[in-house]
Amino acid sequence: MGTLTVELGERSYPIYIGQGLLEKAGAYFEQRGLSKKSPHLIISDSNTAPLYLNKLTESLANAGYNTLTFVVEAGEKSKSLSVYEEVITAAIEGGLDRSSSITALGGGVVGDLAGFAAASYMRGIRFVQIPTTILAHDSSVGGKVGINHPLAKNMIGAFHQPELVLYDVDTLLTLPPREVSAGLAEMLKHGLIWDADFACWCQEHAQGLLALEPEALEYGLEKGCAVKAKVVSQDEKENGLRAILNLGHTIGHAIEAIAGYGTLLHGEAISIGMVGSAMLGVRLGADPSLVQETRAMLQSLRLPVVLPRELETDAIMSAMMHDKKFKEGSITFVVPLSIGQVEIRKDIPASLVREIVEQLKEV
Amino acid sequence: MGTLTVELGERSYPIYIGQGLLEKAGAYFEQRGLSKKSPHLIISDSNTAPLYLNKLTESLANAGYNTLTFVVEAGEKSKSLSVYEEVITAAIEGGLDRSSSITALGGGVVGDLAGFAAASYMRGIRFVQIPTTILAHDSSVGGKVGINHPLAKNMIGAFHQPELVLYDVDTLLTLPPREVSAGLAEMLKHGLIWDADFACWCQEHAQGLLALEPEALEYGLEKGCAVKAKVVSQDEKENGLRAILNLGHTIGHAIEAIAGYGTLLHGEAISIGMVGSAMLGVRLGADPSLVQETRAMLQSLRLPVVLPRELETDAIMSAMMHDKKFKEGSITFVVPLSIGQVEIRKDIPASLVREIVEQLKEV
Repeated sequence: MGTLTVELGERSYPIYIGQGLLEKAGAYFEQRGLSKKSPHLIISDSNTAPLYLNKLTESLANAGYNTLTFVVEAGEKSKSLSVYEEVITAAIEGGLDRSSSITALGGGVVGDLAGFAAASYMRGIRFVQIPTTILAHDSSVGGKVGINHPLAKNMIGAFHQPELVLYDVDTLLTLPPREVSAGLAEMLKHGLIWDADFACWCQEHAQGLLALEPEALEYGLEKGCAVKAKVVSQDEKENGLRAILNLGHTIGHAIEAIAGYGTLLHGEAISIGMVGSAMLGVRLGADPSLVQETRAMLQSLRLPVVLPRELETDAIMSAMMHDKKFKEGSITFVVPLSIGQVEIRKDIPASLVREIVEQLKEV
Repeated sequence: MGTLTVELGERSYPIYIGQGLLEKAGAYFEQRGLSKKSPHLIISDSNTAPLYLNKLTESLANAGYNTLTFVVEAGEKSKSLSVYEEVITAAIEGGLDRSSSITALGGGVVGDLAGFAAASYMRGIRFVQIPTTILAHDSSVGGKVGINHPLAKNMIGAFHQPELVLYDVDTLLTLPPREVSAGLAEMLKHGLIWDADFACWCQEHAQGLLALEPEALEYGLEKGCAVKAKVVSQDEKENGLRAILNLGHTIGHAIEAIAGYGTLLHGEAISIGMVGSAMLGVRLGADPSLVQETRAMLQSLRLPVVLPRELETDAIMSAMMHDKKFKEGSITFVVPLSIGQVEIRKDIPASLVREIVEQLKEV
């Protein structure tokens, strides 16, 4: 089993990655000093709950914890203000107090929703992340939580660090292949922004990762989380460095919104976005091979690298203008210099981005 | 003009109290380094906006700021999730980015609502408080922001410190008498918890305060804000000391909720609550004169000191159980030892509180 620590002073917390961790959840709650007098709320989704919720509540009950559960419909639509309100209602009706916690058992949607509920319920209570997707190795570390607004994704949110992250890789074995690939997009991203060797490792071990081999998964998740933890420790609130984690996300978020949340998976959208970033990198001076290398890595993980023609460029550009990365009139982009190395550029003209969006539609 | 600083390290901020400050808002925005490239949103309410909104936007426009305004209906009902969503929609449609700010021009409702919008929009942008009520001298300092849930007040919120607080006492001159008294309840509270001399000063200068005499107001607000600033500096997130600011609020919030938000003004509800706290103090050993002294001070400010009989004790007790101050099974109370001195007690049995609630109904 691997253990990492996200170093944030008083708000530091551990990430445990391994097999059979769900059965030990009660012990981890105890270790982090969560109160046995107060009720704890577990949020899960309709796909995850039937598989793992009982195992978790049993482990907590055996350790003497009083839990309540709230199951939301699986999918991005649950990251809405109305579902958020239902969660808060459940928390109040369940009698959660300031010593209570909210746990996310599920993927990024559940983590973001439960995390924002924990961040805002009574001005903030404790939060536990138990990710059950590969994609969530990214979202469960770093404290970014939030919900969507009909006009743009993640517009409402907070920075709220978890008490602990429990990553039981056994829960990944039931993931459908398309979600496996989408999750690996974020894993590879951590290599692309920080560690060329790790990016190459992802490509070389693509078969093992896609087949969900435990050793490959544990290594890849630990490496991915370690990059994330390092970046977050240096810049918790995204005043600078942390923005590199957004590689592929400026275009990715826009196409995800335009396609309709959930049509393209988040990882698929940022896969296309990372190809766009590589194209931008080449326009700004990187070696032209960068685009082909990036594409090959993504394709080894069975990810899309071409933007569907039916997504209109105007609509994508307009969605980008509403993105949080649009600041004071210019678009901020994470631009790759080479595999494993990126820079943050705040001066990318919209006209150049439009050209890239067009270029991304060419097979 | 008085200037105070809330000392919170990187998040320290100034409070300016004086006459004619609204006309100088642009200069204060500049001084705090707010961006002239990004749009700024001003939230006000239907009572305040007709009186002061133009003055504020003109001052900001003259300094080169681009502002948008959003006016909500006056009253506690605007602290709802649906109005919050409207504010976020306005922020997105107005193109607010991470360098933008949200300003509250109004009383506590506008401050809490706009503050929570600023805390959660794009995971937090800058926030300016321009209080226009006496009551808001309390709520505008300290960073507690939030909205109500139908089941309980202030259940959804954050700690989000403002960039600056601009307190233009000229805006207080239009307050209706009932709101003046209700605001003075919080001013007196700052004396009751911290500074017996200031509590006596409030009683002695009650006529001047009720008549809104500028010198009395400036002195009282500065003293009140200073107590608040000192307490918040020592305990920003209410892990200990800060709870003393809740004197009268445990019972006060419950009766405010039961009466229906807005039926009893917040200051009126906590006035009754502070009498209850004094009764509790006496039960726990304080000098019996404490109840009469507290009552006399509140009555000098024309505040209610008796609980209306029609408010049912059962309903009040049940509302208290949902309050944030109910932690791990026991009720937390701020209990006065004498005028100017309180202690935090976490062990108050519900049966004793019930007796106090009954006693509060006796004239």
